[in-house]
Order: sequence, then C-alpha cells, then structure tokens
Amino acid sequence: MAGVEIDRLIQLLAKLPGLGPRSARRVALHLVRRRESLMEPLARALAEAATAIRICSECGNIDTRDPCAICADPRRDARTICVVEQVADLWALERTLQFKGRYHVLGGTLSALDGVGPDDLRIPQLVARAQRAAAVEVILAANATVEGQTTAHYIAESLADSGIAVTGLAHGVPVGGELDYLDDGTLLAALRARRKI
Amino acid sequence: MAGVEIDRLIQLLAKLPGLGPRSARRVALHLVRRRESLMEPLARALAEAATAIRICSECGNIDTRDPCAICADPRRDARTICVVEQVADLWALERTLQFKGRYHVLGGTLSALDGVGPDDLRIPQLVARAQRAAAVEVILAANATVEGQTTAHYIAESLADSGIAVTGLAHGVPVGGELDYLDDGTLLAALRARRKI
Repeated sequence: MAGVEIDRLIQLLAKLPGLGPRSARRVALHLVRRRESLMEPLARALAEAATAIRICSECGNIDTRDPCAICADPRRDARTICVVEQVADLWALERTLQFKGRYHVLGGTLSALDGVGPDDLRIPQLVARAQRAAAVEVILAANATVEGQTTAHYIAESLADSGIAVTGLAHGVPVGGELDYLDDGTLLAALRARRKI
Repeated sequence: MAGVEIDRLIQLLAKLPGLGPRSARRVALHLVRRRESLMEPLARALAEAATAIRICSECGNIDTRDPCAICADPRRDARTICVVEQVADLWALERTLQFKGRYHVLGGTLSALDGVGPDDLRIPQLVARAQRAAAVEVILAANATVEGQTTAHYIAESLADSGIAVTGLAHGVPVGGELDYLDDGTLLAALRARRKI
C-alpha cells in the first residue's frame, strides 16, 4: 500500500502481543510522524537490546549480563529462592521492593499435553541449586491457576526430603478490592485464612 | 530492572499509541523470547523504513518514493481528488479498492485554538493543483466531526468559484449496523437521505 518497507514494518508490528492489523497501522503512522524522536531511537534500542540480552544461567532471568544483576548481588540472600513462572512475574515482585532473596524462573508450567516436563522448567537444577546454597526457604510464587498450582505441587514434592521450608503466596482479597466483585474461590480462601486484627 | 538496554526499550515501546508501561513490558518480553524471529527483523524493518520513507510532495501521502505510487500512476484519474485528513484515512479508502482518483492529505484539521491555518494543511496548494489538473470533482472525505466538517466547509468555499464539483461522503446507517445502537444524528441523516429501493 505504501511501499514494501512500510508494509513489512506493519506486518511485524501486527505480531506484537496486543496489536492487530489495525493498531499496527496506527503505530506505523505514529512512528513515521516521529521519525527522529521515536522511530530511529526505537530501531537502535531494539538492535542494541537484541545484542545485549543474556539469559541468566543461574536463575533464568533476562539481563544484559550472566549471571544477572540479582544473582550477582552479594546483598541478596541466596538462601531464599522465589520460584516464578515468567520473567514478568519476577519484575512484578521486584517492583514491590520488598523481596531480598533470589529467583528461579521456570519459563512455564508443567504440561503433559504440551510435552513440558520438569527438565524443561529446570526443576532438577532448582533442587540442586537450593541444596548447594543451603537454602532455608523456597517460595513458590506460581500463578493461582490449575497449571501453576500443579507445577508448585511437583516442586514441593521434589523438595520434600530436603529439609527446606517450602511456602506459597497467600490467597485473599486484593488490596483495594471490593468483595462484591470477587470470585467465590478467592473469597472462600480469604475467609479461611482470616486473621486477628 | 533488567539492564539499561532493556529499560530503554521498554521506555520507547511505552510511547507507542495504545501501549502503556505494563503492555510495553509484555511486548519487550515477547520480543526477547523471539529474538531471531521477531526482535531483530523488527529492528531492521524500523531502520529500513525510517531511511526509505518519503512524504509525497504532490499529495502528502507517505511512501518510499516521491511522487508516491498513487500520484505516479497514470491509470489513476488526476481529475478526481479525494481530500482526507490523515494518511490512515487514505489507506482506509484504498482498502475499498473502488476509488480510482488521487488524494490530497491535509495532515489535520483547521483549528484556531491550535494555530492550524489553511497553509498548514496545504489548502492553497490543493486549490492550485485542482485547477492545474483541470479537476472535475473534489471529494471531501473529512471525518464527520465538527473540526472535520469545518475544514471541509472552508475547502468548499475556496473552490466555490472554480467550477469544480465539490462532494462529500454520504451519511447513513453503517453496513451491518443495528438501528438500536446508532446515534440519533446518524439515524436522522439516514432518514433524510432515504432512497427508493
């Protein structure tokens, strides 16, 4: 429609999550209008990030160095390991600024249907790492989905004889959440885990 | 959080229309997971498009050549000029595959508040071009907003003495639209412009 280079750009943009053909066209036109302030910097940033990115061989985090900044930080407690499904979950936990341990990124959940086994999620490495670091606690911060909880149970089993405390995130009412809009499962979990005020 | 290159990439992605900080992080992780199949091609496509893009000096369209493919195509009728606000509108009309004339892209609408005058929208050039090409019709395909219609009226005035037919898009019920969901203005316009079946 507007030259092969622009068509190609729109095609690639449409593959990004949350964008379709229509929004890809809008993004492309936005970029064209801001060629110097946005389009060229974004091209450079993508190329630089593509070159710089490393996957941490210790925990599976994404960083520009290996081991990643968290694994390389001596102030972070190597004896507390928080297990997450995705790097996005790690980022979410880091934004709380409260967790001072380290992470293990599974990269997914166990799934017999999709052929994802413990080795694909580096669960044996997690167990070995926890024992090597003499971990005192492994926090299973898996998503509260069937797949996430199945994976968490498998990991808990794998660590059962290690003497390491295995914990999970608390379920309950989200801060700022209204009971009326909450699903029954969450409400029931919050009621069961009620605490003295 | 994950190296300066990734942070910079997320910052730039968050500036794209329809993306915020959260979706920019999601897009960045998606790109990282598809480094070779998506991230590197996208970086190249952006750089190539940024280099290749030209604004057509005749009509204001975006293309990789000047004059653009439409203005350079002798099969397209130079005596019918369709005036649109944005390149996105031109693309929308091209997708109908029905219009065989040429375009004039205003790049916006008249706005005293924002200091956008006729010269900023190249309206004098449009009038000169229409007369030079001995145009028989100028179609004002402005958006059906107050600003779009004000701009259309101004252009119609400018062409009043030229003997060129000035037309506008029909208002009515969108194809596939349900009357119950339609705004009153559109319904009234559709009723007024009713036709024999």
